[in-house]
Amino acid sequence: MMQQVNIGLVGAGTVGGALYKALTERADVLAARLGVRLAITRIAVRDLGKARSAGYPNALLTNDWKAVVHDPDIHLVVELMGGTTTAREVVLAALGHGKPVVTANKALLSAHGEDLFAVARANRANLYYEASVAGGIPIIKVIRESLVGNRIQSIRGIVNGTCNYILTRMKLEGADFPDVLADAQRLGYAEADPTLDVDGHDAAHKIGILASLAHGFWVRPEQVHVEGIRHITRLDIQSAAQLGYTIKLLGVVKSAKASAPKPASASSRRRSSSQPGILVAVYPALVRNDHVLASVNHAFNAIAVRGDMVGETLFYGRGAGGEPTASSVFSDLADAALDLRHDSHERVPPFVAHASGAIRVVPIDDVTSRYYVRLSVVDRPGVFARIAAVLAKAGIGISSIIQPEGHGGATVPVILMLHDASHTALSKAISQIKRLSAVRDTPTVIRVENTDD
Amino acid sequence: MMQQVNIGLVGAGTVGGALYKALTERADVLAARLGVRLAITRIAVRDLGKARSAGYPNALLTNDWKAVVHDPDIHLVVELMGGTTTAREVVLAALGHGKPVVTANKALLSAHGEDLFAVARANRANLYYEASVAGGIPIIKVIRESLVGNRIQSIRGIVNGTCNYILTRMKLEGADFPDVLADAQRLGYAEADPTLDVDGHDAAHKIGILASLAHGFWVRPEQVHVEGIRHITRLDIQSAAQLGYTIKLLGVVKSAKASAPKPASASSRRRSSSQPGILVAVYPALVRNDHVLASVNHAFNAIAVRGDMVGETLFYGRGAGGEPTASSVFSDLADAALDLRHDSHERVPPFVAHASGAIRVVPIDDVTSRYYVRLSVVDRPGVFARIAAVLAKAGIGISSIIQPEGHGGATVPVILMLHDASHTALSKAISQIKRLSAVRDTPTVIRVENTDD
Repeated sequence: MMQQVNIGLVGAGTVGGALYKALTERADVLAARLGVRLAITRIAVRDLGKARSAGYPNALLTNDWKAVVHDPDIHLVVELMGGTTTAREVVLAALGHGKPVVTANKALLSAHGEDLFAVARANRANLYYEASVAGGIPIIKVIRESLVGNRIQSIRGIVNGTCNYILTRMKLEGADFPDVLADAQRLGYAEADPTLDVDGHDAAHKIGILASLAHGFWVRPEQVHVEGIRHITRLDIQSAAQLGYTIKLLGVVKSAKASAPKPASASSRRRSSSQPGILVAVYPALVRNDHVLASVNHAFNAIAVRGDMVGETLFYGRGAGGEPTASSVFSDLADAALDLRHDSHERVPPFVAHASGAIRVVPIDDVTSRYYVRLSVVDRPGVFARIAAVLAKAGIGISSIIQPEGHGGATVPVILMLHDASHTALSKAISQIKRLSAVRDTPTVIRVENTDD
Repeated sequence: MMQQVNIGLVGAGTVGGALYKALTERADVLAARLGVRLAITRIAVRDLGKARSAGYPNALLTNDWKAVVHDPDIHLVVELMGGTTTAREVVLAALGHGKPVVTANKALLSAHGEDLFAVARANRANLYYEASVAGGIPIIKVIRESLVGNRIQSIRGIVNGTCNYILTRMKLEGADFPDVLADAQRLGYAEADPTLDVDGHDAAHKIGILASLAHGFWVRPEQVHVEGIRHITRLDIQSAAQLGYTIKLLGVVKSAKASAPKPASASSRRRSSSQPGILVAVYPALVRNDHVLASVNHAFNAIAVRGDMVGETLFYGRGAGGEPTASSVFSDLADAALDLRHDSHERVPPFVAHASGAIRVVPIDDVTSRYYVRLSVVDRPGVFARIAAVLAKAGIGISSIIQPEGHGGATVPVILMLHDASHTALSKAISQIKRLSAVRDTPTVIRVENTDD
């Protein structure tokens, strides 16, 4: 008779529900594909009444997660409750029993990943987390297994569906951020408290996990530089379009050198010393329209990965939602079940610290980028000369200037496209420009992403 | 000491060379990642002198593949020689020894896949072929492992880089097919004999393999409907652009019903009987510009896969070339080495026939599509009425008509966008239109792909 793997499900919300329904429906075809039978035999939920009326069989239900995790008949635990407190206990308890765990919990991994992996290793159990990053896109398996031969040169991901939905609608409809956000909240594309999404924190969790996997050392959440999209206006999106770009919120992992301070003497011919490192960041950026990332619209996610052998790749799909996320949980369930069957739980460990230690995360200050800058200035002679003088003094070149038509107010917008400048140099120049008497409001600064590296 | 897997390499061309170089360079980091050491310890080549001057160590070289495959110190064989005759012997001999085989040979799999998989199973060895489809894109692992929980609803792939390169240049430069082909041959993007690529056969090999994996029964090469791109002109590409489309050569796997002949009585209310099935085909098609496939340019490949849980996904990257293909070979080498280490060779078999038998490949005749039709007609009154009459009689609706400006010759082009029609109905109508006295040349017919299913 075919071996059966008994799955204990902890958390039966949107993802858990989609998983339960699909697994019940297609147990036979999965068994035929895998050579092992998957069955959810216990389910822990917060609200028993709600779960019963949602149609879960009463015999499977409990409101005590311990009854699931400690049950000796449960071979494998799926944690889909979310949060970082009880969820952490659930995962630790299951691993403590030597039971493999499948989780979709990016916040948990981001906060406690390194510890959980150590516990998994110590208990000879595995921890699977495909569903924790980018919903249905199989990016964990791709980076860890498919691209194993590559040195990963860069990762650029649209990994927050809410932000991409908002930016797409702002572009397609010429609408402003607050209006689209309100509508997105009404439609369920954004939370009532949108902070986690629109301020970039959710994307930061995900890009931190991908950076860690790609570079073989654990990137801590506080090492990720984070900027959100609240300051992006309709005019920015339209001006970017005019210049051939689309504004996207990107999670970015790329090589960066943290330069030491420049020698005091300007005549010195010595180069400033530098150490190899990576930048791990989330920020909105102008992406050239001929790059595939620019055509990723609505709530879709996509992750562009550049490896030294494979070159440029991109993986696109739904980054959230019950069924797409459950699809990734299935991928992990299949791996976990096959590893149980073949006693190969250490075959692909959750995380391998393979970096030599020479590489490190660098702060964004010294990282250079091209910039888009939008200023609001009083329309009178000599204003532009002063702005240009500040930039010239800072050694920052201007590649183009747009003054959009049809703004007849007291102030007019001026858009500058700047050549490469460090974050520090640009910030300093901007604060000087802001102090000019003809400049009103806070200038808007958006990076122009160089997708060629 | 860490276990070492000795690899015998058969064929040291572009891919083999890239593999050897990369593996030599990064043996340590791979060992750290995998927990097992990979080493190429024997290499069979056709031309020893050439291999020596390419820098392969003489001690590893032989011009006798049997010396590699039969060597008891070789644990794993990588077949990168190409072709279907000797390559088949190599694979069979290695599997016969119970040695896992990694191959990038799509022609071999397309022609002999089913037999080779049976031999692998009988010998308890595994056959890995990630590199056989779409170069560096990890589509085999994605369909087989990452999307294992899904019923695959459709696959649409740009899987021939030569054709995509030609179509992209025709679009960007407004150039004609023969000129771009000649230039592509000069630059090495197309073979001296381009038949395999531009007539769709290479794409057919690949889409046949993907169809088989997705649907769980082996699709034979002769079941794949194949059309190439030789008949596509600059005018077609421009007219498609005007309508909001880009022309791409697609490999397509999608649900299709093979309808039985319609009841003779038009008054019959019975529906025509139908059987479930899939269409497996390669053809050029108009793809809407807002679909990500339309923005896949130059020699890049991309495969859009729609699963019932995951929804729409897309996987993009380089479909050919030494290093991208070697990247996929690495993915297989890692799996093969881990399976050797954990004695889990049956963990993910090369192919699982999981279909119930109810599903089958349907001929294209009854499959419906929207169509783009370009006619060359004599510019005189009444011509269009006759064409429209033929289509009306066939029950095929016209959704739009373009008559491009600036054609002052004796004949003018007329472009029709047609509503859904079966391949048979459309072909019949076109052959009638072709016989009209005012219609010159053979009409060009291109499908308009519905990417929403």
